[in-house]
Amino acid sequence: MTNSRKTIAIDMDGVIADTISNFITWYEREVGVRIPLQAFEGKPEAEGLPDNAVSRYVVTPGFFRSVPVMEGAKEAVLEISKTFDVYIVSAAMEFPQSLFEKYEWLREHFPFISWKNIILCGDKSIIGTDYIIDDHVKNLDTFKGKALMFSAGHNIGIDRHARVNNWKEVISFLKAEANS
Amino acid sequence: MTNSRKTIAIDMDGVIADTISNFITWYEREVGVRIPLQAFEGKPEAEGLPDNAVSRYVVTPGFFRSVPVMEGAKEAVLEISKTFDVYIVSAAMEFPQSLFEKYEWLREHFPFISWKNIILCGDKSIIGTDYIIDDHVKNLDTFKGKALMFSAGHNIGIDRHARVNNWKEVISFLKAEANS
Repeated sequence: MTNSRKTIAIDMDGVIADTISNFITWYEREVGVRIPLQAFEGKPEAEGLPDNAVSRYVVTPGFFRSVPVMEGAKEAVLEISKTFDVYIVSAAMEFPQSLFEKYEWLREHFPFISWKNIILCGDKSIIGTDYIIDDHVKNLDTFKGKALMFSAGHNIGIDRHARVNNWKEVISFLKAEANS
Repeated sequence: MTNSRKTIAIDMDGVIADTISNFITWYEREVGVRIPLQAFEGKPEAEGLPDNAVSRYVVTPGFFRSVPVMEGAKEAVLEISKTFDVYIVSAAMEFPQSLFEKYEWLREHFPFISWKNIILCGDKSIIGTDYIIDDHVKNLDTFKGKALMFSAGHNIGIDRHARVNNWKEVISFLKAEANS
């Protein structure tokens, strides 16, 4: 196939989907206590809430469908899709109740992404795009192309991948790449 | 990641899942007429049954969950998984009601395949495995590794990919590769 456009894989949770916000919202609704964002810093995501609540929510129907969009993600992905072939790649298979929810979520919030460009998988090591944007180091470490680490509480202090703190920085990084 | 094992992407419909058989079964149950397998030869799969039935069945809940396993597939995939990292890669996103059904189908019939090794996608062009086994030429044409075309009515006469007619031939082909 002749295709001069570069390909980019973009993760959902923690990257275009503000999953941590929804953990906090769901916990507050259930327990009446608002856990600060800082509680998720410097530890695995599953340890961000008390009472094993994170591990319960990720297998609860409706959780992934109700996640808010990450700030700036919609506009940025639309912008990126002008110059890159964008693929949304989510490790959804661990929580199979999330498969259809994630499809519906993308249709609602990112209707300009074709079903052809959605990948719901487990391990991401066989994703062969030119770039990946992901918050989980395990996905970045096995990637063969250029990896961008989207900042999250659980990846604080890790410096073996190019870090982007928000969607404005992603756009700046990719513009610099295009001009290099 | 250091991994000396080769990776292989294996398609579901028409490869490990005998989807055509289920089209014939569903049509016979609905209309009372048994369409022969030959009706699917030399034309797009969607034209194999009268009355647009194929296009209706693929969006009907329960269709993909009830597909029988392709003859010899289970034993062959188990055999292959001893020497390859096997990924099941299905273009399920066009029919999102099939996502959970395909997950459940794999859990039932291929329980030895981890959720980490399941990919439900649209376009397969970004799958970066060393090998792919697929019946659809569109998936083989864009593949960057070594492509194996699993015989199907809709790919009769196409000779630009290595053809395998059944799972015994897949095993023979891969054994020859391992020894080459």
